Amino acid sequence: MSTNKTLVLQSRPQGMLRASDFAVVDRPVPSPTDGQILVRNYFASLDPGLRKMLGESDGYWVPTLLDAPLATNIVGKVVESRHPDYQPGDLVTGTSFMQEYAAFTPGPMTWKVDPAMKAPLSTNLGILGATGLTAYVGLFAVGQPQPGETVLVSGAAGAVGSAVGQMAKIKGCRAVGLAGGAEKCRRLIEEFGFDAAIDYKGKSRAELTAAIREACPNGVDIYFENVGGIQLDAALACMNWRGRIPVCGLISEYNAASTEPMANLFSIVGKTLRVEGFLCHTFTDLFPQALRDIDQWISEGKLHYREHVEDGIEAAPGTFVKLFTGENQGKTAVRIADPAAD
Amino acid sequence: MSTNKTLVLQSRPQGMLRASDFAVVDRPVPSPTDGQILVRNYFASLDPGLRKMLGESDGYWVPTLLDAPLATNIVGKVVESRHPDYQPGDLVTGTSFMQEYAAFTPGPMTWKVDPAMKAPLSTNLGILGATGLTAYVGLFAVGQPQPGETVLVSGAAGAVGSAVGQMAKIKGCRAVGLAGGAEKCRRLIEEFGFDAAIDYKGKSRAELTAAIREACPNGVDIYFENVGGIQLDAALACMNWRGRIPVCGLISEYNAASTEPMANLFSIVGKTLRVEGFLCHTFTDLFPQALRDIDQWISEGKLHYREHVEDGIEAAPGTFVKLFTGENQGKTAVRIADPAAD
Repeated sequence: MSTNKTLVLQSRPQGMLRASDFAVVDRPVPSPTDGQILVRNYFASLDPGLRKMLGESDGYWVPTLLDAPLATNIVGKVVESRHPDYQPGDLVTGTSFMQEYAAFTPGPMTWKVDPAMKAPLSTNLGILGATGLTAYVGLFAVGQPQPGETVLVSGAAGAVGSAVGQMAKIKGCRAVGLAGGAEKCRRLIEEFGFDAAIDYKGKSRAELTAAIREACPNGVDIYFENVGGIQLDAALACMNWRGRIPVCGLISEYNAASTEPMANLFSIVGKTLRVEGFLCHTFTDLFPQALRDIDQWISEGKLHYREHVEDGIEAAPGTFVKLFTGENQGKTAVRIADPAAD
Repeated sequence: MSTNKTLVLQSRPQGMLRASDFAVVDRPVPSPTDGQILVRNYFASLDPGLRKMLGESDGYWVPTLLDAPLATNIVGKVVESRHPDYQPGDLVTGTSFMQEYAAFTPGPMTWKVDPAMKAPLSTNLGILGATGLTAYVGLFAVGQPQPGETVLVSGAAGAVGSAVGQMAKIKGCRAVGLAGGAEKCRRLIEEFGFDAAIDYKGKSRAELTAAIREACPNGVDIYFENVGGIQLDAALACMNWRGRIPVCGLISEYNAASTEPMANLFSIVGKTLRVEGFLCHTFTDLFPQALRDIDQWISEGKLHYREHVEDGIEAAPGTFVKLFTGENQGKTAVRIADPAAD
């Protein structure tokens, strides 16, 4: 345990993220302080939202410091504990750091992996972790869908978006997805059971609006937002009276500020829309039920997911960049160590 | 009753509204059909929100037809009734048309004027009508202020905005207003009791953000939005965690689409903001209590208001334009007939 490969931010990204903004360095294995646990990490998550933490802050969230370990969700095994609820050997998932061994204080997004769970360990970062929980609380608690309503999802081929569409179907809604490219759109229909898919690539704001109207003949009751930009603006034009827009992310604006003025913000007043940002970890009281529901839906074959896992912490920088070029397929993570070999 | 001066839309406005987009024409006095009342109008309201009804519709609201009477809120006297709840001689206020005599079906925003009310009849269009009710439901039902919170208001010198600031003070909040020009800002402090006022004129987005931060040292919990544009974007940057943005109007965008991209939309996610459009008439269940509260606050000297009433329906086009040039002072209406001479 003398070496501890750690992903750090080497330079603050300007515009589009580059792999060279990161470096993998060797750091000492930390010693847990009171209340902390030391965890050998098996998998670490790469999320588009992490990108916001790499830039200048507006004074609210804490930006990642240069040369500091990148914070992210992990799944791993406790090797040393100074926290009464955790023992060495426990499998845990939580918000920690992208390194081989990390010490952290268990927070609201930390819990022990349920040993009854049959899905692979990595799904604790995905469909049975932050990804699935984000889809669940955003759709159900924020969006409050009713059977028969229409749910439009941006970033629909992504890990969260594909789960949202399937959960909307489970609830009895019409699910329509926005995704980039014919292949992703085909997958929305064939693999995830969406009722319709719209390829946003190459479409102007007016074309996108027309395509949404065609795919949503009864209008849009819930627009689950992962993307922003003209997709948000086109969706605003198609919303129904008292529509809801849970805002999960705005990935189109993470690498560069939007250059397109919004044209349809008045819809918020004229149709009395509710646009509501949310973060998964403010809904921890819903997690036990959510995880039971998700686990059951997976076992019933109603909820499909994809994982994109790359090997080794060294793969993290390049894999992170792929999140923004649309090359990733489903929940993206890196395998830091092989649990089977441990 | 053979002539009936009526304000009609003569040409659909392109960009900035012009007085010549309207005409005052003579129309026959209508006969009420079953369920309708015929009202001799005394006062008619001019609201910025009417501007949206003059343009192209996005398919949701009904745009004003050319040559058709302009819909607006009125106060007047029933002269003929085919509705069981109304008798000739009743004073009523409701959504009707900008003409001397108008027939309409009483809707959710129609009610008889309370004879116990001491304030002038015109206030039924203002502080004791849609203006005051809009401020009340937007602040209390949508914004849900808690004592000690900071409430920022755009269009703060306007009829709705000035009421919002005073109601925030009544609730025990810090009230900060955005208004155009030193004179309006002085009035916010001296006449309406705001804690601070910010002159937005000539300020860049960054300067506006800095001014809001200075005037709101504990951040902004509620931003009551009447304006949009860079004021909205600057406010987003200053919101507190779980802040609320009741969207009452976006007056900066009524005559022309915004040309400024939004830079701070991610705050909606990062700070889990709720941005919620509202229309006064969806909260009719709150009106009786609201009108009692407002009446009491006026009588206690806690709630001040201004009216800007111009004489004659012929004044309506020019007065309407002033709503967008910032020349109006408080609730704006035209006097179509003198109730004292009736």
